[in-house]
Amino acid sequence: MSETNRAVVFNGPRDMRVESLAYPKLVMPNGKKAPHGAILKIVATNICGSDLHIYRGSFPVPQGMVMGHEMTGEVIEVGTDVEFLKEGDLVSVPFNVACGRCRNCKARRTDVCETVNPDVACGAYGFNLGNWNGGQSEYLFVPYADFNLLRFPDKDQAMAKILDLALLSDILPTAFHGLMEAGAKPGSTVYIAGAGPVGRCGAAAARLLGASCIIVGDYHRERLELVKNNGCETIDLNQDIPLQDQIEAILGEREVDCAVDYVGSEAHGIGAQAGDPQPAGAINQVIDATRAGGATGVIGVYGPDPIAPTKAEQQGVFPLDFGKAWIKSPRISAGQAPIMHYHRELMMAILWDRMPYLSAMLNTKVISLDDAPAAYETFEQGSSNKFIIDPHGSIPAA
Amino acid sequence: MSETNRAVVFNGPRDMRVESLAYPKLVMPNGKKAPHGAILKIVATNICGSDLHIYRGSFPVPQGMVMGHEMTGEVIEVGTDVEFLKEGDLVSVPFNVACGRCRNCKARRTDVCETVNPDVACGAYGFNLGNWNGGQSEYLFVPYADFNLLRFPDKDQAMAKILDLALLSDILPTAFHGLMEAGAKPGSTVYIAGAGPVGRCGAAAARLLGASCIIVGDYHRERLELVKNNGCETIDLNQDIPLQDQIEAILGEREVDCAVDYVGSEAHGIGAQAGDPQPAGAINQVIDATRAGGATGVIGVYGPDPIAPTKAEQQGVFPLDFGKAWIKSPRISAGQAPIMHYHRELMMAILWDRMPYLSAMLNTKVISLDDAPAAYETFEQGSSNKFIIDPHGSIPAA
Amino acid sequence: MSETNRAVVFNGPRDMRVESLAYPKLVMPNGKKAPHGAILKIVATNICGSDLHIYRGSFPVPQGMVMGHEMTGEVIEVGTDVEFLKEGDLVSVPFNVACGRCRNCKARRTDVCETVNPDVACGAYGFNLGNWNGGQSEYLFVPYADFNLLRFPDKDQAMAKILDLALLSDILPTAFHGLMEAGAKPGSTVYIAGAGPVGRCGAAAARLLGASCIIVGDYHRERLELVKNNGCETIDLNQDIPLQDQIEAILGEREVDCAVDYVGSEAHGIGAQAGDPQPAGAINQVIDATRAGGATGVIGVYGPDPIAPTKAEQQGVFPLDFGKAWIKSPRISAGQAPIMHYHRELMMAILWDRMPYLSAMLNTKVISLDDAPAAYETFEQGSSNKFIIDPHGSIPAA
Amino acid sequence: MSETNRAVVFNGPRDMRVESLAYPKLVMPNGKKAPHGAILKIVATNICGSDLHIYRGSFPVPQGMVMGHEMTGEVIEVGTDVEFLKEGDLVSVPFNVACGRCRNCKARRTDVCETVNPDVACGAYGFNLGNWNGGQSEYLFVPYADFNLLRFPDKDQAMAKILDLALLSDILPTAFHGLMEAGAKPGSTVYIAGAGPVGRCGAAAARLLGASCIIVGDYHRERLELVKNNGCETIDLNQDIPLQDQIEAILGEREVDCAVDYVGSEAHGIGAQAGDPQPAGAINQVIDATRAGGATGVIGVYGPDPIAPTKAEQQGVFPLDFGKAWIKSPRISAGQAPIMHYHRELMMAILWDRMPYLSAMLNTKVISLDDAPAAYETFEQGSSNKFIIDPHGSIPAA
Repeated sequence: MSETNRAVVFNGPRDMRVESLAYPKLVMPNGKKAPHGAILKIVATNICGSDLHIYRGSFPVPQGMVMGHEMTGEVIEVGTDVEFLKEGDLVSVPFNVACGRCRNCKARRTDVCETVNPDVACGAYGFNLGNWNGGQSEYLFVPYADFNLLRFPDKDQAMAKILDLALLSDILPTAFHGLMEAGAKPGSTVYIAGAGPVGRCGAAAARLLGASCIIVGDYHRERLELVKNNGCETIDLNQDIPLQDQIEAILGEREVDCAVDYVGSEAHGIGAQAGDPQPAGAINQVIDATRAGGATGVIGVYGPDPIAPTKAEQQGVFPLDFGKAWIKSPRISAGQAPIMHYHRELMMAILWDRMPYLSAMLNTKVISLDDAPAAYETFEQGSSNKFIIDPHGSIPAA
Repeated sequence: MSETNRAVVFNGPRDMRVESLAYPKLVMPNGKKAPHGAILKIVATNICGSDLHIYRGSFPVPQGMVMGHEMTGEVIEVGTDVEFLKEGDLVSVPFNVACGRCRNCKARRTDVCETVNPDVACGAYGFNLGNWNGGQSEYLFVPYADFNLLRFPDKDQAMAKILDLALLSDILPTAFHGLMEAGAKPGSTVYIAGAGPVGRCGAAAARLLGASCIIVGDYHRERLELVKNNGCETIDLNQDIPLQDQIEAILGEREVDCAVDYVGSEAHGIGAQAGDPQPAGAINQVIDATRAGGATGVIGVYGPDPIAPTKAEQQGVFPLDFGKAWIKSPRISAGQAPIMHYHRELMMAILWDRMPYLSAMLNTKVISLDDAPAAYETFEQGSSNKFIIDPHGSIPAA
Repeated sequence: MSETNRAVVFNGPRDMRVESLAYPKLVMPNGKKAPHGAILKIVATNICGSDLHIYRGSFPVPQGMVMGHEMTGEVIEVGTDVEFLKEGDLVSVPFNVACGRCRNCKARRTDVCETVNPDVACGAYGFNLGNWNGGQSEYLFVPYADFNLLRFPDKDQAMAKILDLALLSDILPTAFHGLMEAGAKPGSTVYIAGAGPVGRCGAAAARLLGASCIIVGDYHRERLELVKNNGCETIDLNQDIPLQDQIEAILGEREVDCAVDYVGSEAHGIGAQAGDPQPAGAINQVIDATRAGGATGVIGVYGPDPIAPTKAEQQGVFPLDFGKAWIKSPRISAGQAPIMHYHRELMMAILWDRMPYLSAMLNTKVISLDDAPAAYETFEQGSSNKFIIDPHGSIPAA
Repeated sequence: MSETNRAVVFNGPRDMRVESLAYPKLVMPNGKKAPHGAILKIVATNICGSDLHIYRGSFPVPQGMVMGHEMTGEVIEVGTDVEFLKEGDLVSVPFNVACGRCRNCKARRTDVCETVNPDVACGAYGFNLGNWNGGQSEYLFVPYADFNLLRFPDKDQAMAKILDLALLSDILPTAFHGLMEAGAKPGSTVYIAGAGPVGRCGAAAARLLGASCIIVGDYHRERLELVKNNGCETIDLNQDIPLQDQIEAILGEREVDCAVDYVGSEAHGIGAQAGDPQPAGAINQVIDATRAGGATGVIGVYGPDPIAPTKAEQQGVFPLDFGKAWIKSPRISAGQAPIMHYHRELMMAILWDRMPYLSAMLNTKVISLDDAPAAYETFEQGSSNKFIIDPHGSIPAA
């Protein structure tokens, strides 16, 4: 067994490094023993758009924190109270850290576990939400393993689809959650704000669930091409045309049934204002795009941002077009997704080949741990790739 | 049959008058015949908190518009395509005007009927939402009568409970809707912002559905007494104590499962700021009061307000604590209530005596049409009464 | 305008005829005028598996009744209270006759409309459920046209997909309803009992909504081939192997998440008992196939059957494996589907090309009115076609 | 600490005995250590109607099995992986044994836990469903304590309401579950089959959730009086009047919105057939009583019954009026209740005094362990008491 654990750590804004840390133990962040925990050898660990919040300094974390919350791995050690997993199992790690024992976890609201973070009812790996080490590393400690981990039924079958299955730890269920909160169902018309990886997962998830007209808006032509080539419509937000006009040109109606913000507070304006930061731009865009009687999901991250230019934003206050929208009976649902609510079913859909377009839409690129710091930079500049780190060289070449 | 129709009309801000208008016909606002319509002789027609928006000039309506959207009446004429109602039936009129034939109505989303208002997908009596005359009058035209009207099964039984049943046209179902959108169920802990009539209906509805701890916040001592005497807890918002501290003192927890804003954009601050208008104060208060994993209903009215002090408010933009709340996975649901979704069941609850506390909480006062203009003024000053106009002297003295 | 109306009529068991009847009027079965009604020129009118119940004599109807409840047509006349449809509109007719004005219709439960059938709360065309003429004819009267009819947004676009859209009047939404009642969602594993047209629609609908493993059981090899060639697994019920064993061989688990009975009381046994009528065979099969925690939909028709061999069946009493299943916490949902709940969204899915496999699975065959009696016979013998009657020769050759 | 554990054991049909057994250990039935488990000192342990199935021999269990599944107790020992409970906590034990780690538990379907019973996906204390000892005893081992147990927030407050809170381990949440499965909500009309303790809890729960007309049917006058005196209507099933006629006399309609079977397979007929066993009588009764568009819950226990008179019943096959009901679109939901889904909220309702009628309806009687065998006999003869065993004399006299 290894004695070290190479990992991507945050050294400061726009400064990620790969360092050798101590091999993990079955111990909680507060030092308590974790007989319910497991150690994983990481097989795939992705860079997520929300990692960029940390990269840019918008979401403050301690220097030296291990990055990463999208992990897939092999169980190599289990605690004395792990009953249903064993060494060798290949598992997906939901990015939410959850105890499975509090009121919210018992209601499958693992996004708001009450016990794993002493500060707020929300824990996650690699996020300064409960002091959980991230998993852009060789090895990872996972607590409450029986509760949290999703075991793939067949290891060989899973390795053959690992680039798709690696999306189960976060962005595919997260994207799906946004659609569920927006009330999407077979035949729905959908507007997706943002063609980054999670927005593209949203487009793929919308196809899976049988949405009819799926419209994706973004500024990056390459990202839009990925969804356009896979059964979706696109809107180039650089065009100086009001959003509802652009929707109408595609759909014949000015609003959709369901709209989801996959962008968050780093949004920009439309057309002439495409260069201007508009922290509430994406959420106001999706509220605008949603029909009366429809619903809106907000998957993009919002929060107090210490480096924001205005005091309001620094305190997490956003100017929402709430009064404009009120007459439409808006329903707005935001926050992190409870991955566990969706990951098993989405795994089944992948294993039974129901998302053949997923890889093509995501445009996945496998990299090494050492490549990770550079990938952060590339990703931040609008790359159309989804980066998956393969710390042990386990992923077979495509 | 009468040839005139005495009615409360809007002559200008803070200027309501009683005038004699023409007796209504089975004709739509656009002049088209309405074989589906009915004429009602009004038995009870209430003054609503949202009428005060018009009264104050915040919600602009044309001079001369008939006020009122909370009507109960007797059918005295039906069109040729009314099949299931007949003269003499006593009925409750949902304040939503709805066609029963569009996509939203077919889904029982009568709050956003697509056809009865040429401007937006939302129609209402007495509101400049589709040019529908209000019903603070002797007689009223109601379109799509078979679809819209709720017939009381027994007229005598209904007249004996008319002060409770008169609440079915708007505020009781509206209040109930706020609780449903906030996910309230038996055993839930609930925070109710506002002890005006609709907030007090919210408290009563929370009792009906079996909520456990029901906390109501307001500034008016008399209003708070009404709920305190009927099984609820109260918070005096004049006290300079943070809301979560006040909740904790009552409940032992700092947040509730469900919180509903029954105030809207005419909210004020808490404690030292109780005198300051805070247009987003009530919605931020309920978001603050809701636990992670809970949900929030917004029944209070928001909209572009032409007489608001800031340009943002004039345009319907509100500074929401969205970034602060995001980590709690907030669910916010706003807009008008689809009365039809709830009124039949609430009628049954009243008829089977399941809300014996309703009258006491509402503190209803019956007045004549001629008393209405003065009642607007009294109500606007924070009266603890709910005013019900009895245009024909039909309501028996209690 | 035509003065006659050629139609398929029931002359007795296994005796369908084409006769010339009177052109329809805007009049209800009880003779009352119907200002809310419309007359359609039929473009497509399908033969349904439930028509075979009538054909065989299991579901008694009066001699001379016009058959048919799956109609698509062009509006050629509207009553004075039809506001949102006009001559020339191409529409789908839900098989449920519904008033849009009763308690159940207002809740979109058009399967149990309380007013259109004086006998029970359920009306349908061509079924002796309210004396509504069927629509295997040139022309049809439809009541409550604004409420009932689904207008296709573009006539030319619709005619280009008319064979798929013709399924919206019944079997596609009906099949979808079965899956919804069984709790199907993206990633679910599904067992479908019966590969007749509605079962095949169930398989297609399961694909649309993103089900993972979709297993269809039947005896007819040709029918099974249609689904096998379009992304589903199959079980040949002639094989003398217990159902759970067959499921396990495909799925690796002995039970599925959701199972739907698309057969009804004319079911048979499995394997050695494949030749034996087992009136409760299909429902017991789907209960058996459903996992603990799953749910079961019953779309197949059950009822008192006057020509059944036993008195129990004649009275509609069925021997269900309820005690065996109780420990699994069964949920069983049966009855007719409220087409309106689903048809608009499914239309959108078809129009946006989300069901490219639908035509291939259904194996549609267009026939003339005069061919209809022979098609009943062919269909009853297990044909793998879905027959669509084209009374006016309106459907372009494929 | 005690070295023995006095308990009620099953010695054979109609032969319960109190014996001294070994003090429990933190060990699973299969001998594995249980670091997740706890030992409770029992404070209240009720006799349940389903215990009578065992008493009569209908539900076979091994000789010597400890009876009881409705326990409330004090934590006196916890395993090394119990984090959120400690010695001295007063807790309610859901009768479902559940692991909190399998697919069904993660979805809060603790009624069908996949791991705690090697035979079927369903475990319970004192039931031969996984070899879990019952809790009609001084002490009890509970596995997965953090997941399963509901802690009362304040011990003194809880002891003051212990007779109501003791119902949270089974019959109050079970009764509530039946209503939820039947779609009950504020204003619903409800028919409750059976006025035994769980049926009376159903009546109380229906009041809590705001049902309008609550009708309870039974044969025992004393039991009916208990509900009649507490806000419900009653039907004496000894009267030879069809059920729908009796409902109509009370409600003015022949069917209710929601009906729940709280009886199970030991049902009898109505009127002249009141003395005749009708194993499917209660379920057919509730299906009959439910309106088209309503729903039916089946809380009563069904199963293969080895001592039933017919082979069909012995195999768990029941003659259901399914064909008669099909036209009403029946929804039937059966099985054990997932107590965890409801117990916390119902506890809150009790603690905030929202069920003041509960004690009166239940007519609770506290007895000693030694009184238990006699209480089984009394209960089986139709006593109107609910018996609560107090093994340590902990419950203060009322």
